[in-house]
Amino acid sequence: MIPALARVRVVLVRPSEPANVGAAARAMKNMGLRRLVVVDPPRDDEARATALAVHAADVLAARVTVASLADAVADCGLVVGTTGKPTAPANDGALPPRALAATILDAAVVNEVALVFGPEDHGLSNDELARCQQLVTIPTAGAYASLNLAQAVLLVGYELHLAAAARAGGGSSPAVAPRALATHTRQELLFAKLEPALRGIGFLQGDGATHVLRALRRALGRAALDDDEVQLLLGLARQIAWAAGQLPKRPPN
Amino acid sequence: MIPALARVRVVLVRPSEPANVGAAARAMKNMGLRRLVVVDPPRDDEARATALAVHAADVLAARVTVASLADAVADCGLVVGTTGKPTAPANDGALPPRALAATILDAAVVNEVALVFGPEDHGLSNDELARCQQLVTIPTAGAYASLNLAQAVLLVGYELHLAAAARAGGGSSPAVAPRALATHTRQELLFAKLEPALRGIGFLQGDGATHVLRALRRALGRAALDDDEVQLLLGLARQIAWAAGQLPKRPPN
Repeated sequence: MIPALARVRVVLVRPSEPANVGAAARAMKNMGLRRLVVVDPPRDDEARATALAVHAADVLAARVTVASLADAVADCGLVVGTTGKPTAPANDGALPPRALAATILDAAVVNEVALVFGPEDHGLSNDELARCQQLVTIPTAGAYASLNLAQAVLLVGYELHLAAAARAGGGSSPAVAPRALATHTRQELLFAKLEPALRGIGFLQGDGATHVLRALRRALGRAALDDDEVQLLLGLARQIAWAAGQLPKRPPN
Repeated sequence: MIPALARVRVVLVRPSEPANVGAAARAMKNMGLRRLVVVDPPRDDEARATALAVHAADVLAARVTVASLADAVADCGLVVGTTGKPTAPANDGALPPRALAATILDAAVVNEVALVFGPEDHGLSNDELARCQQLVTIPTAGAYASLNLAQAVLLVGYELHLAAAARAGGGSSPAVAPRALATHTRQELLFAKLEPALRGIGFLQGDGATHVLRALRRALGRAALDDDEVQLLLGLARQIAWAAGQLPKRPPN
């Protein structure tokens, strides 16, 4: 395995078909990815999954099963969500895998990285996409854009494999010095503290709050925060919450 | 369909599984390829093929069946054969699809072009490969190099689609649309508004303020904010400043 890919895991969220889990494992192994995490998997049909995994039965057998996306990515510094709906407002800023490959490899030098794929039918929910710092969308032809799960895994893996092989071949070294990023758990703590603070000063209110929070998450996701920065922003949230607590009247609309 | 791909056909030689023909049709349509030719096809199992084609039933239904590879490529100016054995002597000079994409598109401006894929088990024979002017091999991880037929079609199609979309001006691929970032002037306006607001709630104070502001700038700089995001953060600065103005006493140190 190319070492750069050792810290990259593939996370399949609520796949409905055991066969697709097997086929995804095969696609992973084709592209040098070995670590598979399945969130809330389908009723086991090991025979079917194994049949589709073909020579990637080892990847399939070593998979980790967890109950939630949060569990799957808790220790990750970079969480990349895949979406097939790049034009939806929630997916603003989704990049093609080729453009993200270098970012992913840079992060994987010192961080755990998750590539998250949604259920076959509707993909990741907006809430799940909001938990991802970067979004990736695979360019396809307009007439028929829908890839199956294993194909999506294959194409993202292919771009990573090519980029990693180019680096291993002495081509380009990482574009930037490796930064240790804050874990997903720390980042979620930040949003858990920011939200009530921003409500307290009237910045978040009514129907627009969800949209505003999502935009904040997306911008801070791109920022790839490290621990010191999360600490700084936690301090900001605390100070805003303090100010909100001092307010003599309700914030203006 | 991107016009550059209109003259490109996919030729499947002696596929053994009807399901794979259907899955290949789906992969073709995903990537904007519409013309499928099957050489010496398996005993028909139309139901199985159609099931795997999903929304590419039109591509499948319009396929042409011929008896030999020679018939399939007779009118082609360029015949590209795929091989999974790039190190075999017969395959000397096989290129990855990314390197061949431009050549294929150049040829397809005025020529018919065939992309030829062999049977699932052993690929194209040496005689068949000898009929091809160019050979293409898909880079995979050493541990497990074998792609299934539809995946091979998908990856070659993907590289052609990206190259064709880039030539068409990138307009056909919404995912690669560049993001228009906020100007430097707008970003500086944001910091000019944020600083007094953050002082007002006691987040910036004393000697540490310069360091904290610098860290905020660095994090938001990495976020590569667009105009909407700067607008959003300007709104946040305004609301923090408002809250600061309501404070009955000085913020705590």
